[in-house]
Amino acid sequence: MSNWKFRLQSAYATVTKGCRHVPHKPRDPRGISHSRLYHAKTFFTPLSRARAPQILVASSAAVAGIAALILSASSQRKALAESEPPQRLIRLHEIHQHNSTSDSYWVYHGTSVYDITEWVPNHPGGEVILRAVGGNIETYWNIFTIHQKQEVYDILEQYLIGQIDPRDLVEGKAPMDDVDDPFKADPQRSDTLVVRSERPCNAETPEDQLGTFITPSNQHYVRNHLWVPDVKDGDNHRLVVELTDGTEKEYSVAEIRNNFKHHTITATLQCSGNRRAHMTAEARATSGLQWDIGAISNTQWTGVRLRDILHDAGLSVDMLPEDAKHVQFVGAEAYGASVPAIKAVDRYGDVLLVFEMNGKPLMRDHGFPLRLLCPGHVAARSVKWLNRIVVSDEESWSQWQRRDYKCFGPNEGSKVDWDEATSIQETPVQSAITSITNISKNRLANSELAKVYGLEEDAVKVAGYAMSGGGRDIVRVDVSPDDGKTWRQACLIDDESKGSKAWSWKRWEIAFAKHDVAKHVVVKAIDESYNCQPESYEATYNFKGNLTTGWHRVRVSDDGGV
Amino acid sequence: MSNWKFRLQSAYATVTKGCRHVPHKPRDPRGISHSRLYHAKTFFTPLSRARAPQILVASSAAVAGIAALILSASSQRKALAESEPPQRLIRLHEIHQHNSTSDSYWVYHGTSVYDITEWVPNHPGGEVILRAVGGNIETYWNIFTIHQKQEVYDILEQYLIGQIDPRDLVEGKAPMDDVDDPFKADPQRSDTLVVRSERPCNAETPEDQLGTFITPSNQHYVRNHLWVPDVKDGDNHRLVVELTDGTEKEYSVAEIRNNFKHHTITATLQCSGNRRAHMTAEARATSGLQWDIGAISNTQWTGVRLRDILHDAGLSVDMLPEDAKHVQFVGAEAYGASVPAIKAVDRYGDVLLVFEMNGKPLMRDHGFPLRLLCPGHVAARSVKWLNRIVVSDEESWSQWQRRDYKCFGPNEGSKVDWDEATSIQETPVQSAITSITNISKNRLANSELAKVYGLEEDAVKVAGYAMSGGGRDIVRVDVSPDDGKTWRQACLIDDESKGSKAWSWKRWEIAFAKHDVAKHVVVKAIDESYNCQPESYEATYNFKGNLTTGWHRVRVSDDGGV
Repeated sequence: MSNWKFRLQSAYATVTKGCRHVPHKPRDPRGISHSRLYHAKTFFTPLSRARAPQILVASSAAVAGIAALILSASSQRKALAESEPPQRLIRLHEIHQHNSTSDSYWVYHGTSVYDITEWVPNHPGGEVILRAVGGNIETYWNIFTIHQKQEVYDILEQYLIGQIDPRDLVEGKAPMDDVDDPFKADPQRSDTLVVRSERPCNAETPEDQLGTFITPSNQHYVRNHLWVPDVKDGDNHRLVVELTDGTEKEYSVAEIRNNFKHHTITATLQCSGNRRAHMTAEARATSGLQWDIGAISNTQWTGVRLRDILHDAGLSVDMLPEDAKHVQFVGAEAYGASVPAIKAVDRYGDVLLVFEMNGKPLMRDHGFPLRLLCPGHVAARSVKWLNRIVVSDEESWSQWQRRDYKCFGPNEGSKVDWDEATSIQETPVQSAITSITNISKNRLANSELAKVYGLEEDAVKVAGYAMSGGGRDIVRVDVSPDDGKTWRQACLIDDESKGSKAWSWKRWEIAFAKHDVAKHVVVKAIDESYNCQPESYEATYNFKGNLTTGWHRVRVSDDGGV
Repeated sequence: MSNWKFRLQSAYATVTKGCRHVPHKPRDPRGISHSRLYHAKTFFTPLSRARAPQILVASSAAVAGIAALILSASSQRKALAESEPPQRLIRLHEIHQHNSTSDSYWVYHGTSVYDITEWVPNHPGGEVILRAVGGNIETYWNIFTIHQKQEVYDILEQYLIGQIDPRDLVEGKAPMDDVDDPFKADPQRSDTLVVRSERPCNAETPEDQLGTFITPSNQHYVRNHLWVPDVKDGDNHRLVVELTDGTEKEYSVAEIRNNFKHHTITATLQCSGNRRAHMTAEARATSGLQWDIGAISNTQWTGVRLRDILHDAGLSVDMLPEDAKHVQFVGAEAYGASVPAIKAVDRYGDVLLVFEMNGKPLMRDHGFPLRLLCPGHVAARSVKWLNRIVVSDEESWSQWQRRDYKCFGPNEGSKVDWDEATSIQETPVQSAITSITNISKNRLANSELAKVYGLEEDAVKVAGYAMSGGGRDIVRVDVSPDDGKTWRQACLIDDESKGSKAWSWKRWEIAFAKHDVAKHVVVKAIDESYNCQPESYEATYNFKGNLTTGWHRVRVSDDGGV
């Protein structure tokens, strides 16, 4: 094992040298993509460092990346496979020996046997896959149903080495392993949520709830990478804080709640995939969940400042040590991410360890009993079911930090060099239309909108949300009733948002004379650094479909509604 | 006077009420635009508060705004003028009485006499115009030559009240006043700078200097709103710091240099008008200096932290008092601006009081002996020739804070409600092409670019700069050799930039096979919050032409050069 590791690390070292200056460097002579070496490293080194529990892990968002990573190796394999079709018969006990304690990893699917040793480092779900090696992979795919797609089958096919010996088959079938389903303890959820995937659960806030400033907790969009940890005794749930010198301090949630000052802030969380379906529709295919406009919600969060906890744990928060560059977080289900240390300790950054949402204890789907809230950053950094914090000189080594949540150029396919791209932290300016409604001139009469926009006829009211990252306030929302030919400024609603900066979405509304409204209504927002949204989706296209912020265009139906 | 002020302030009060919710509120019943009332207020209140010296002031960038502001009043005037052509003859001594001590202000131009009382509050140059009232305005326009344009003459014409009595004319001419030319002490400048206006001096860094990481001091672009103060004894130049409770502390530049820790950071300053000429060319007419790509430069600045000075002056910098929301700055020539207090005291904000650039004392054009450096913000906030700092609950009342440096919607003409718009602070992501050069395959051979981009034929090398506001680093630069059809990622050059965040521009370069290069090469940059530049100029068009960041398109000449 240590040899493996050494070889990979030295290879990795050569890779990173001067990479900033050389975005498109030649591939490794052995024809192995840097990403593979890189992730082999993340696989062998960091998890031990981060002491992640050895449990079943998989990432829905990440799976799509596999095909690309595997390509270089698979082509070699394919050649091999074609030259010598593997007719070899293999006994079950032989497969069982190639388990996680072995140095070559086999699995079977149907009656076919595969040696996936070479691929294991690339598993987007991390080392969890070792739980499946030596046995039947199908069992796990029946739980993580996200694997049940052609692109995953194709990858596996590259590693075929033989067939199960008929003597071990029962009525022509290989035995299924008996594995506990980690999702069976997932909470009950509101049936008004718009479900995008069942296991893990990913669901949008319904459109009729996107018009309220504070999203009801049970209507908050759900973005789970795995199952929901079932923490019975929230007060005694433990959080360990580790500093760069290795010193650790442990807290129970009760201690955190009782011994530190409470802060309540209002903050919007948005998934990096919000509006991904629009990029797919207006540009090209993207991988990952096809979210519409509802992977975003706004909440009043109550907790203690991360800054205060880190200070209590012994970190010099007002003069960070040289090696305190990032703060890493690990959740109870092994999800990991990190944020820059400067953000973590910023007095006006409002980074909280949260135990309440909208005045009630956190819902299980949203991190009970303790989660991070890093306002102004992509929601993927606000780690739920928090059980470990590590102050470090490097980013989290989780694939959710180093892989999934990055963007690439419009020209770049999935064969990218992941460590060239910057992890998404603060998000760009965003907006969406959440409702378009007809208003008769009688109902409109004397309303504020009628006054503001000087309307005395039948009108169309358009409303929506706008927000930006980093606490940058929305300064203007331009809305076009005629597909971008002409614009007017929407009214920005002065909702009260608690916190040092503008962490909440800004609701907006505008009305047009019905006869001025053409087929498409369009919105674009401008934030206080005067960044604006891109007009076309092509300009910011990335194969992951992250951070879709192209102007939101909505077709107006003939009766004026959406 | 106090009546005036009271009336204006109460009117203003009604205006601001709920304005956030009502961007397009009905105009004041008296038909006076809010902006006029608003600026009347800035004229009578703040300057006294800020104790700005009573000296000659004018703003080049602002002049263009006059016509709009004046419209409502002028139309009334015009009606008047047409109904009763002013044939009245007026004696010079009568004009002299209507000076700054009077409550109605007259000037003459040629042999015509004007009562400009109603307009004075709108003078973009502020109260300075009072220096001219009671006399010959022509004298001042010969100094501030920027006034010598039809739009300014037209405004004046609205206020005609009569003609100078022939008895006071010498050979049919009225006497010129004798006024000291404040520009005569302006420094000598490099003749390689690209001059956009002489008085005040505004000049670009030449293109061949935009490719160096650190701009030579004498090649740094010059952006002066007025003349250059002639400070003989820099060490004894005084800086007064005033806190919200009115307490003041005074420092000499020598004390600042000797008693506080020195810091050196590398930071790019960019004028909000940089690339304005591109918006004019690709969208519509804009007001203000028509800068190309050279209103930007990068420098090593040395000074002390504003945070340390404010702390020494008695401000609680780690826990700002409620009423410390902005920090205002006043220069020796009366230029004024402010930045948010959070930025001013941020440990990682690197806001400095600077006395050195590139290891030498500040050049006079750049603020000798002391200037503010607010990295990551528009250069207009980095006040030069600093002599006063005021911690306040409100922004600077100068027209450079409340007027010139704002943006509006593409649909909004010059009749805007200035206080609806947010002052520009942090700037959006930006990039420009600074050079396009042919490289023969022989010269290219074995070069790094050849390796990176796999080139073995004659090539075209494209280089430029990219930057963003708020210290947000540039994470990717996409360059298209064919007017946006296809893209490749440029190499980002790893120049060493000192400071807590990415305050410097990022130089980039890329090469294409000559046969792949079409008529236009295009660049767009992406910053670490994944904001991108707008494709079209129309999307971000604003009549002031501020913050032009549309994709920079450069036509490639047939010989491959720019």
